[in-house]
Amino acid sequence: MSLLPLNASLVPFLKPYLPVPKDDRPFVTLTWAQSLDSRIASRPGVQTKISHLETKTMTHYLRACHDAILVGVGTVLADDPKLNCRYGNSYKIRPVVVDPSGKWDYTSSTLCKLRAEGQGLAPLILVSNDVNISTETENILNSQDGAFCRLPFDRMNRANNWELVLNALHNMGIKSVMVEGGAVVINDLIQSSMVDSVVITVGPVFLGRNGVEVSPAIERRLVDVDWWKGQRDSVVAGRLLPHSA
Amino acid sequence: MSLLPLNASLVPFLKPYLPVPKDDRPFVTLTWAQSLDSRIASRPGVQTKISHLETKTMTHYLRACHDAILVGVGTVLADDPKLNCRYGNSYKIRPVVVDPSGKWDYTSSTLCKLRAEGQGLAPLILVSNDVNISTETENILNSQDGAFCRLPFDRMNRANNWELVLNALHNMGIKSVMVEGGAVVINDLIQSSMVDSVVITVGPVFLGRNGVEVSPAIERRLVDVDWWKGQRDSVVAGRLLPHSA
Repeated sequence: MSLLPLNASLVPFLKPYLPVPKDDRPFVTLTWAQSLDSRIASRPGVQTKISHLETKTMTHYLRACHDAILVGVGTVLADDPKLNCRYGNSYKIRPVVVDPSGKWDYTSSTLCKLRAEGQGLAPLILVSNDVNISTETENILNSQDGAFCRLPFDRMNRANNWELVLNALHNMGIKSVMVEGGAVVINDLIQSSMVDSVVITVGPVFLGRNGVEVSPAIERRLVDVDWWKGQRDSVVAGRLLPHSA
Repeated sequence: MSLLPLNASLVPFLKPYLPVPKDDRPFVTLTWAQSLDSRIASRPGVQTKISHLETKTMTHYLRACHDAILVGVGTVLADDPKLNCRYGNSYKIRPVVVDPSGKWDYTSSTLCKLRAEGQGLAPLILVSNDVNISTETENILNSQDGAFCRLPFDRMNRANNWELVLNALHNMGIKSVMVEGGAVVINDLIQSSMVDSVVITVGPVFLGRNGVEVSPAIERRLVDVDWWKGQRDSVVAGRLLPHSA
């Protein structure tokens, strides 16, 4: 699906929330599209259209402002997403897939196909140290300039795992990462102190209580808040008030 | 707490959603303030500040446009609310409390005190046919021009109960009702075909998954949608797309 031209008012709206250099880790933007009842899908594993094409264009513009786009394994399994940047057809964003248990078959994915067609970069796939990857798959990914990255993931300490992930990206020279989902990843990160900007598209629909929900275990407030009003959706941007405040 | 002056841009924003005469039942506006994760309170029974004072003023302006304000018994028990209209200090809105089991002690409420001080109308309290009300309480309420209204509520058929409620209000000459909560009432009515307008204030906070949630059992879309951007909150107004559409 081709994108709409970017609504010009989105450029100054988003500017205060775009990545700036950080010394110790990548700048993290957390972004997603949700219903009024904070669902990102109507059912687990079901891709659900929430945002208008104009806010989808915004997402690709935001991708163009980041080095990498990160999603959890649940998102690649459910959506088989493109994870490329179609704004200006630059395609220059590095997909990062967090897949501790090695559940994703990259070689049969849309992402692998797009890479072969020159419409995206190959991913970094973050797996646990103890996961076995077939030599053939690893060779294909390496030949495309992607990589498996083995990390000492701890199944019992997810907060610690996110530090591992961001450190690994930092060590690979990634200065900014746009985190797009899914719900497990978003809920983990809203609770953390690792998020620099939040950009949420809200579509005027209730997906209902069987949907896949974004809601952290603890209360978090947004500060430096601004809202952008689209044709049908609204976008809220802000920063998370630090835990200690 | 005194209100701010009404932001003038709210008047044209709200105009398309205000009550119009209906033949068969009152016009129903469903309105609430929620967090980004669609919570109306951080915990059950805990009154939680979500909306900025400017959107609170909007709520009182909306009340001034309706004959009655309706809440469920959970809300009066949790919040002991004023349920009056402080916009222009008119106080002329009829509180309606849906309390099928007769759990609320009206005579010890803030509402009863305000009525005595001339700062609000006495409520209509909708109870089941089989509930016993003390003669003293009934006499106090009647002397204030309020009333207990006995209805054949069915504990097994909540949708049917809402028809009973709206019919009763219609028979009492109430032409428009603003429904403000709590979550059980809102979730019931979002699912129904009895709602004419929806006005939701969204505050830039996540109250977290232990909060009191608004989310219907089924998917509902809003149409004729408009967004208003406040200093900190956003307001979305619209109509529910009919079930058959």
